Amino acid sequence: MRIALDTILFPVSMSLFANNRKRLCDKLKAKKVPENSIVLLQGGQQTQQDSTDRDITFRQESYFQWCFGVTEPDCFGTIEVASGKAVLFIPKLPKEYQVWMGEIYPPSHFQAKYAVDDVKFVQDVISQISEELKRINAGVLLTLNGLNTDSGHTTREAAFDGISSFTVNNELLHPVISECRVIKTEQELQVMRYVNRVSSDAHKELMRRIRPGWMEYQAESLFKHHVYTHGGCRHVAYTCIGATGDHCAILHYGHAGAPNDRLIADGDMCLFDMGGEYYCYASDITCSYPVNGKFTDDQKAIYNAVLKSNRAVQKALKPGVSWVDMHLLADRVQLEELVKIGILHGDVDEMMAVRLGAVFMPHGLGHFMGHDVHDVGGYPVDGPERRTEPGLRSLRTARTMEEGMVLTIEPGIYFNWPMIEQALNNPEMSRFINADVIQRFRNFGGVRIEDDVAVTSDGMEMLTCVPRDVDEIERLMAEGRANDNPVLRGNLLPIVKA
Amino acid sequence: MRIALDTILFPVSMSLFANNRKRLCDKLKAKKVPENSIVLLQGGQQTQQDSTDRDITFRQESYFQWCFGVTEPDCFGTIEVASGKAVLFIPKLPKEYQVWMGEIYPPSHFQAKYAVDDVKFVQDVISQISEELKRINAGVLLTLNGLNTDSGHTTREAAFDGISSFTVNNELLHPVISECRVIKTEQELQVMRYVNRVSSDAHKELMRRIRPGWMEYQAESLFKHHVYTHGGCRHVAYTCIGATGDHCAILHYGHAGAPNDRLIADGDMCLFDMGGEYYCYASDITCSYPVNGKFTDDQKAIYNAVLKSNRAVQKALKPGVSWVDMHLLADRVQLEELVKIGILHGDVDEMMAVRLGAVFMPHGLGHFMGHDVHDVGGYPVDGPERRTEPGLRSLRTARTMEEGMVLTIEPGIYFNWPMIEQALNNPEMSRFINADVIQRFRNFGGVRIEDDVAVTSDGMEMLTCVPRDVDEIERLMAEGRANDNPVLRGNLLPIVKA
Ligand SMILES: [Mn+2]
Ligand SMILES: [Mn+2]
Repeated sequence: MRIALDTILFPVSMSLFANNRKRLCDKLKAKKVPENSIVLLQGGQQTQQDSTDRDITFRQESYFQWCFGVTEPDCFGTIEVASGKAVLFIPKLPKEYQVWMGEIYPPSHFQAKYAVDDVKFVQDVISQISEELKRINAGVLLTLNGLNTDSGHTTREAAFDGISSFTVNNELLHPVISECRVIKTEQELQVMRYVNRVSSDAHKELMRRIRPGWMEYQAESLFKHHVYTHGGCRHVAYTCIGATGDHCAILHYGHAGAPNDRLIADGDMCLFDMGGEYYCYASDITCSYPVNGKFTDDQKAIYNAVLKSNRAVQKALKPGVSWVDMHLLADRVQLEELVKIGILHGDVDEMMAVRLGAVFMPHGLGHFMGHDVHDVGGYPVDGPERRTEPGLRSLRTARTMEEGMVLTIEPGIYFNWPMIEQALNNPEMSRFINADVIQRFRNFGGVRIEDDVAVTSDGMEMLTCVPRDVDEIERLMAEGRANDNPVLRGNLLPIVKA
Repeated sequence: MRIALDTILFPVSMSLFANNRKRLCDKLKAKKVPENSIVLLQGGQQTQQDSTDRDITFRQESYFQWCFGVTEPDCFGTIEVASGKAVLFIPKLPKEYQVWMGEIYPPSHFQAKYAVDDVKFVQDVISQISEELKRINAGVLLTLNGLNTDSGHTTREAAFDGISSFTVNNELLHPVISECRVIKTEQELQVMRYVNRVSSDAHKELMRRIRPGWMEYQAESLFKHHVYTHGGCRHVAYTCIGATGDHCAILHYGHAGAPNDRLIADGDMCLFDMGGEYYCYASDITCSYPVNGKFTDDQKAIYNAVLKSNRAVQKALKPGVSWVDMHLLADRVQLEELVKIGILHGDVDEMMAVRLGAVFMPHGLGHFMGHDVHDVGGYPVDGPERRTEPGLRSLRTARTMEEGMVLTIEPGIYFNWPMIEQALNNPEMSRFINADVIQRFRNFGGVRIEDDVAVTSDGMEMLTCVPRDVDEIERLMAEGRANDNPVLRGNLLPIVKA
């Protein structure tokens, strides 16, 4: 018996990147950049593990990718603002390359592959740029220099020996290109829908297969295998979070200091925050559910509280609303539900005033997503400033929503015990908490429900497609527990063309 | 039905690293380093993708790992040469860490976890080292500064604000610690046997499952899933090479410019060079076979030529033999076989004199393996120099074999057409080549058979355990083609404890 599966990869047209370049040029012209400017970007470089010769599997730098869609490391690219003319600079490879790395393709190959106007060698970058600048009448090189407001790192500005002989402006480009990246085109949305579908499918596969007795990292392994073998995602968009039990309260669990290495216990909830990446477009999805396939009453209560919060935001989201307000809405719904569950008591407005919501949801409601999982443009110079209150200060943007923005909606309720104890010791907070009831949730961990959405003209489009209702989840998990269903079992196999 | 599989992970005792440190101190003492010296190493640092906040999943720096076996980034470590006293310096984490990253453990936790003599905070490194140096009577700090002869990179020397107030020697340590890494202890060999077994199992699983109609990267995906889910290998030791058809002639296929992205065709050979990594110990195994499960006569002939070469080296390998001689032996056997196949004609000694073997095997016979897949110590200052002849100059060591060395034995025959054409155009070479016969192999690609071995007192120990005879391979592949065997199908599932 052979199992044929839908694994048609999504074909990405190079016109997506040409369109991005055109949008960039139009914006730059509208910003009245100096006439005859040329954008100069440096692509990511192949790096090695420490001092060894072991290559880190290359992933393109995001700004360069957004403009050129180029898979290979060690390139440069220029875009003439007036005409939009795009030139890709590729490394001139030594003859031995063909023995160790593969065929040495001529520039014409890359010109066709990436649909740029011209391809030159990096080694000739100075003379070529000189020539271009002369041709367009001695303009300015626009290089990328700006702060990533999530990391605090600054972009790596294009550099090569001899660049000092040109007139360089490194301030104009960054805000404009970052702003372009915030608003996704229909072509970009198509890719993001694809990678979201692939990642959703992998989450569903995990729901079918997960069992008490697995190691947490086996969930990570299965997810990565699924998005790669069925979706062509060589990379994931971030380190997989494969938390179970009280680990679910650790927001970025899964790193080297906590590498998804616990045995999964019956009765525990899991929180799987995992997303594939395709053509450097991210997805970022969290599913929370009981590993044994059946919600307890407490699990159901917390889960439904988070789900209600998630759905309330989805219903309210549209152009013109403030992301800060969406966060506050999520907080409010969760606090209301925590009152109903009996963990809290009192007036929700008063709780909001002391930011009690941040005790249970210390992170922001969600973030922009695109080439980077925490995408750029969250805090532009002319946009709303970062808030300072707990919870709100963790928001990766405070902006007003616009059509074409892609965001995660990821409310959560966590019982991070050091945080809970802090609240219990703070009279301003503890007056709302039923100290006896909350003890029951000490090892609960937490629940996060994270969907990816695109803002449309009058609301939002859901990109994520996983079961969210308790009944749906239990049904899918039960289906996966019918172990002798060969189709389900076979789902792990790569395609076999009969 | 539930399938229980052997997925017991290999427990690595911290005494392995204590023993490494002891060996290092003994060697340093024997080299008469200044009395009262302290070795100072800086561990690897957590890095991010370009300017973003996306963490690159951390993997410890190899020298630091060899000494301390520490999973976490951003540490330092010191070892007092006279007494062997080991101090680990960990970062003092901010309070928010417990919300985002997990529990903040006290130094005592790490002291127990890593069995070191003391644990301090990195922030106190200056005062602590001052104190230690004072206690042992104002000695010298030994830092690591040396060339990696495979990459050409220099190790990153430990550095912190204020180090200039100490007496530092950065020359003594590197040759001594690198030499220690060359010779593996029994404890290290146990880990290397384990990771080799896990990786061998993954290769066997690929043999069972691979089909024409897969994408090459689906082999990569399955391999990584298998070593992770069944062996706990979060990392592979290098980017997987999932070559098929003429791609098999590209020695380092699989990188971003050639990312295992071809549809696998019926009738093609594959060359899968993949190895898991466990506790930063590498494995490096290549299997070559026809993707449809049946060798043609030509495939069998080339395969058996390489196998004969591999086995000849295994038979000859023991302490005292030169690795260069092993390479020449492999070359000679392959040339002899190529004569029998009819691709070459003439006197093999004459072929050896013009280095014809390097046309078919341009790479070196094999390399040291340990924490790095291309491990350090290949060309110590007082060892044999790198040869300059084709093939031989690609050897990553030219040393005389010693007990405890771990190496790959990876002869290969490749039909890299640009290389073949070069040889056909060179009268010195072409006189041996049957130009009509070799045309038949134009799209053949190539075969590599790579095993990992440890040199013993009187020979070698095989670490790799995959089928190598044509019959064995065909039998295993046929077994995998009995698709309705649930045990085979279930082998992809993570463990389920019934
Ligand atoms: Mn997220
Ligand atoms: Mn190798």
